[in-house]
Amino acid sequence: MRILVVNPNSTASMTARIGAAAKGVAAPGTEILAVNPPGGPESIEGYYDEALAVPGLLSAIERHEREIGVQGTVIACFDDVGLDAARSLATGPVVGICEAAMQTASLLGGRFSVVTTLARSVPALDQLARRYGMAGRCTIRAAGVPVLALEDPASGAVDRVRAGIRRAVEEDGAESIVLGCAGMADLARMLAEETGVPVVDGVTAAVKLIEGLVTLGLRTSKAGGYAAPLPKVR
Amino acid sequence: MRILVVNPNSTASMTARIGAAAKGVAAPGTEILAVNPPGGPESIEGYYDEALAVPGLLSAIERHEREIGVQGTVIACFDDVGLDAARSLATGPVVGICEAAMQTASLLGGRFSVVTTLARSVPALDQLARRYGMAGRCTIRAAGVPVLALEDPASGAVDRVRAGIRRAVEEDGAESIVLGCAGMADLARMLAEETGVPVVDGVTAAVKLIEGLVTLGLRTSKAGGYAAPLPKVR
Amino acid sequence: MRILVVNPNSTASMTARIGAAAKGVAAPGTEILAVNPPGGPESIEGYYDEALAVPGLLSAIERHEREIGVQGTVIACFDDVGLDAARSLATGPVVGICEAAMQTASLLGGRFSVVTTLARSVPALDQLARRYGMAGRCTIRAAGVPVLALEDPASGAVDRVRAGIRRAVEEDGAESIVLGCAGMADLARMLAEETGVPVVDGVTAAVKLIEGLVTLGLRTSKAGGYAAPLPKVR
Amino acid sequence: MRILVVNPNSTASMTARIGAAAKGVAAPGTEILAVNPPGGPESIEGYYDEALAVPGLLSAIERHEREIGVQGTVIACFDDVGLDAARSLATGPVVGICEAAMQTASLLGGRFSVVTTLARSVPALDQLARRYGMAGRCTIRAAGVPVLALEDPASGAVDRVRAGIRRAVEEDGAESIVLGCAGMADLARMLAEETGVPVVDGVTAAVKLIEGLVTLGLRTSKAGGYAAPLPKVR
Amino acid sequence: MRILVVNPNSTASMTARIGAAAKGVAAPGTEILAVNPPGGPESIEGYYDEALAVPGLLSAIERHEREIGVQGTVIACFDDVGLDAARSLATGPVVGICEAAMQTASLLGGRFSVVTTLARSVPALDQLARRYGMAGRCTIRAAGVPVLALEDPASGAVDRVRAGIRRAVEEDGAESIVLGCAGMADLARMLAEETGVPVVDGVTAAVKLIEGLVTLGLRTSKAGGYAAPLPKVR
Amino acid sequence: MRILVVNPNSTASMTARIGAAAKGVAAPGTEILAVNPPGGPESIEGYYDEALAVPGLLSAIERHEREIGVQGTVIACFDDVGLDAARSLATGPVVGICEAAMQTASLLGGRFSVVTTLARSVPALDQLARRYGMAGRCTIRAAGVPVLALEDPASGAVDRVRAGIRRAVEEDGAESIVLGCAGMADLARMLAEETGVPVVDGVTAAVKLIEGLVTLGLRTSKAGGYAAPLPKVR
Repeated sequence: MRILVVNPNSTASMTARIGAAAKGVAAPGTEILAVNPPGGPESIEGYYDEALAVPGLLSAIERHEREIGVQGTVIACFDDVGLDAARSLATGPVVGICEAAMQTASLLGGRFSVVTTLARSVPALDQLARRYGMAGRCTIRAAGVPVLALEDPASGAVDRVRAGIRRAVEEDGAESIVLGCAGMADLARMLAEETGVPVVDGVTAAVKLIEGLVTLGLRTSKAGGYAAPLPKVR
Repeated sequence: MRILVVNPNSTASMTARIGAAAKGVAAPGTEILAVNPPGGPESIEGYYDEALAVPGLLSAIERHEREIGVQGTVIACFDDVGLDAARSLATGPVVGICEAAMQTASLLGGRFSVVTTLARSVPALDQLARRYGMAGRCTIRAAGVPVLALEDPASGAVDRVRAGIRRAVEEDGAESIVLGCAGMADLARMLAEETGVPVVDGVTAAVKLIEGLVTLGLRTSKAGGYAAPLPKVR
Repeated sequence: MRILVVNPNSTASMTARIGAAAKGVAAPGTEILAVNPPGGPESIEGYYDEALAVPGLLSAIERHEREIGVQGTVIACFDDVGLDAARSLATGPVVGICEAAMQTASLLGGRFSVVTTLARSVPALDQLARRYGMAGRCTIRAAGVPVLALEDPASGAVDRVRAGIRRAVEEDGAESIVLGCAGMADLARMLAEETGVPVVDGVTAAVKLIEGLVTLGLRTSKAGGYAAPLPKVR
Repeated sequence: MRILVVNPNSTASMTARIGAAAKGVAAPGTEILAVNPPGGPESIEGYYDEALAVPGLLSAIERHEREIGVQGTVIACFDDVGLDAARSLATGPVVGICEAAMQTASLLGGRFSVVTTLARSVPALDQLARRYGMAGRCTIRAAGVPVLALEDPASGAVDRVRAGIRRAVEEDGAESIVLGCAGMADLARMLAEETGVPVVDGVTAAVKLIEGLVTLGLRTSKAGGYAAPLPKVR
Repeated sequence: MRILVVNPNSTASMTARIGAAAKGVAAPGTEILAVNPPGGPESIEGYYDEALAVPGLLSAIERHEREIGVQGTVIACFDDVGLDAARSLATGPVVGICEAAMQTASLLGGRFSVVTTLARSVPALDQLARRYGMAGRCTIRAAGVPVLALEDPASGAVDRVRAGIRRAVEEDGAESIVLGCAGMADLARMLAEETGVPVVDGVTAAVKLIEGLVTLGLRTSKAGGYAAPLPKVR
Repeated sequence: MRILVVNPNSTASMTARIGAAAKGVAAPGTEILAVNPPGGPESIEGYYDEALAVPGLLSAIERHEREIGVQGTVIACFDDVGLDAARSLATGPVVGICEAAMQTASLLGGRFSVVTTLARSVPALDQLARRYGMAGRCTIRAAGVPVLALEDPASGAVDRVRAGIRRAVEEDGAESIVLGCAGMADLARMLAEETGVPVVDGVTAAVKLIEGLVTLGLRTSKAGGYAAPLPKVR
């Protein structure tokens, strides 16, 4: 089985870490293709970056389905950028890492908190929590960490994420934690051990969900809002 | 006051009708600039079309704010395409025609129904209704009309929209109606007279809301998710 | 266009300030009639005051529609006192200042907070927020200010409102603020400048909404709960 | 224990039937005072009638608490007219018959339907269902019966109510039924036997709830929105 | 009228106190049978204890209906253990003390808080609040008191419950309080006097609700999810 | 990896079919143990059957964790019987087939419908849909098929399920379908091919979720409601 993992920003070092995390949990026989579109924002921090990242993301999905024959796709940005459009366009199933992580956390306890990067991303994640039916059990927190600080070990970013987790457990009643950025994919196990609560990373969670969908023979329904794009001038 | 009305698809005849509707309700002293980005999909029928329309929409807004000095912007596509990104990018207030129409309908009665174009657009509008707090009082219906059929008087589109309104009143308990496509902007008064219930068009509703915001001196808050884009490579 | 702005309490100085605020934002050609019924409570602070204010409010609306020919009505009490009954009775559209302010704030950002007068008014506003679909994004706060203290510059009321706004931004994550009393109508611009977030006053917001409805030719639907009162002994 | 049952409309024959129903379920030692204010609408069919009925209702409650010493009050109109104001004003507990009936029905099964009088009353009851947390399990239906037709055995009103119950069971999945008008108080047992599902009348349900509250020594909290009215000119 | 009050844990001293509280509020002519199943957990503190308590609870209800002819049943554990199964099995109505207390508190004010025993019980009560439509107005708090500490006057349990009530009023905006354990049944009046807000105990509240249902001739509907168990091997 | 799949009813032929379905999708290296407790109801059709099945289910989970070392558990009854108690008791993660199927369906489209066995099971599934945050996008339908009819090829059960799927697509706007009984586990692919929409079976969906959780090293959080049972007499 071939799974495409698209990082919609253009920072190759982040794509490499995302790919490594994905490969670390893939089943025997699953091939992971971790890519990022050539152009696009270097990081996604707010709605404007999201919007600009989508066309490149969609064209990467279309090309990998057509040329390489991937059977499922993970969108590796915690804002679930372009998810609806990707589901319309793609033949195989598509999963976003926010929805994957929230679903996974919901299997481990009652309340959970998302620890994300910057405060400006909180409202978008609040909207996703509502959309995914999780608003009643989920709190979104910002660690005050720019996305690219996660690429720099000297930035103190990990300490801030850890502090965010501790506050989530104490103040939000969080029983488990979701890491709210694809760039945190390699931190989950370490932070779980340090804090004593389950810590869910969306990239690895989404890889397992997509593997499951492909194994079960399930694809996006084309009977409603995800109908294939109509032929037209675009 | 200068108001920008952007039709995010590339069909100039629709832009012209939208512009005419907007000018028809503008206050004395309000100048309406109705434009569409040069490229982009010829109509927006589903999430994929939406995604491709956004970059052109954003650049049109940025250019008109910078070069011409518009004080407020209406996004004239009923999917409220790119609304969050536009609010982050723009200096002046931005209103989508779906939110404008739903807010306006909520002032006229209890339950209302949206009569939109194609069934594939219903799930996106259901999501918007939930997001805008209207899900408990609103039903979304498709009239089975492709967007560009609204440009063709011989298509029978108007009859289907009228039939959709009649069913909404009888079956949904709708007290008022929202027309679910910018291309229906010129039909509202005629359909209201024929059917006896208030019929709200989003383009004209949004023009009045934006005029109000500009008069009140109100702009998008930059204190949260609509903070201005950070400087970065994009 | 003639717009009626009814202050349902009997404090004429507050009616005068409300009227001045309304006139300050009215479009050229809009005539504002700011009135209060002759009897009724001197201020509205809780459900009992609300109930006693309604009959006078309704009779003022009926008389101004019949005798003077107003085309739309604003109810200038933040509890939206008598709004449903007024919509049944009136021929023209009716807007309450709470719904107007909440709708307006929802166009400017994600979360917002209402800063109202006394703690006893908070539950009624919580109910309105739920009814208007805003409960998920809105916090209600009391500034601890009796309504009539707003008529007395020496009362320190403005300082308390300003402090309430600051706490709302810090503690509630409010991106914009709604002033929760008609008696605060003249404070919005000053407080917005001082605090750096958009501040919405309901009186001025409602005037712009009513002007919009009248321009669009929209009236309350009589097809449901707002059907005209039946002839009967009352 | 003395319980006041106020019919807020001015139709004495309905008050008599309401009083008889209330007495029929009162515990030994409970004295029922069924009254209606002298003026006010002859029936309550819509928001305007509601608003006009409230001042008389409140003054009846105040007078009976002060002069006769009632320990609890039932508001016997299915719109729960004036309930919030009555709770602020009264010393003893106050229950509305809509909330009483909905609470009672929720103890008997999952989904239930309200069969009320006229279509114009449905939106107000939809709002009450949402306010009482019942919207997810409750459908409101109109039987097409004017309130005063219930006073006239030859009107066919009972047949329409029975037909409404049958449709509710078949089409809404109703497991139990709430009668949506105080004027139906004497029909519950007969209709339950005929239709085979539990049928709840609000008047009798409210009498039992008020008796319970008085026995338990529980009164309306004055710590929030139901604080006693402040001294002021009214 | 004979009412069965089942304590589903096996601690006889708690059953005795529950029975005394129930008898203290029963109407003349109501006979209270307070029992606990012979086996089962000594206290119910979490989902596992709940699950193990249910079969004994059900068999006690079945036996008392068949042998003694009780007309209604109260389940005296605040988790409303086995409530759905009991409603399916029993002929007469069944009320849980959590739903009884929450309904009763909702008649006394807007927001209320539940003060329960241990933190591990909070998520189960959060679920019940959502199910009963109370989530928007209710906060669940743990006092940090093991259930059986309530049987020991020297444990300091009452002080912790009182402190929890005080914090609920100050921090949650609670207008009334619900005691979140059957073992607190005898504390309600004392704590109400000490704290100045209404304090609702579920056991006594449920007794009054069941008396009401029996008097009104209302039983669980068998038309939906509470249909009688089918004959089968079990 | 060893996964326990517990059918909580006592019908061995159903356990065999469940086990076969589970093995059919398990990854290489996953060992499936499909069991049912020795006693318990022969099928689970309503709340009473659910309650009686739980103790045997819990003891099967405890024994297989202790004696055989399973790393994760699937509860193979669509009512998610005993899920909360099992999560408290077990060391490894536990997934119910209803939550697994609903989560999976939510990744494939907007609205979906559950086609279950008997009407009496619909209310319990409505509650689960609400609990899992799916109520806004999901309809529950009964096919009118007793559980054990699924064991009998001559019963016509499959035809009724197929008819239910067709009605769900036409009447509910379902974009995908969830099969609402573990006994339907082997029908999903056939029905998907016949009806043209994705059909999700909970048993196979849950196996993939549990495999994912075990691979990711994630277990139930013990920090909240799923804390391990306290030592006590039971």
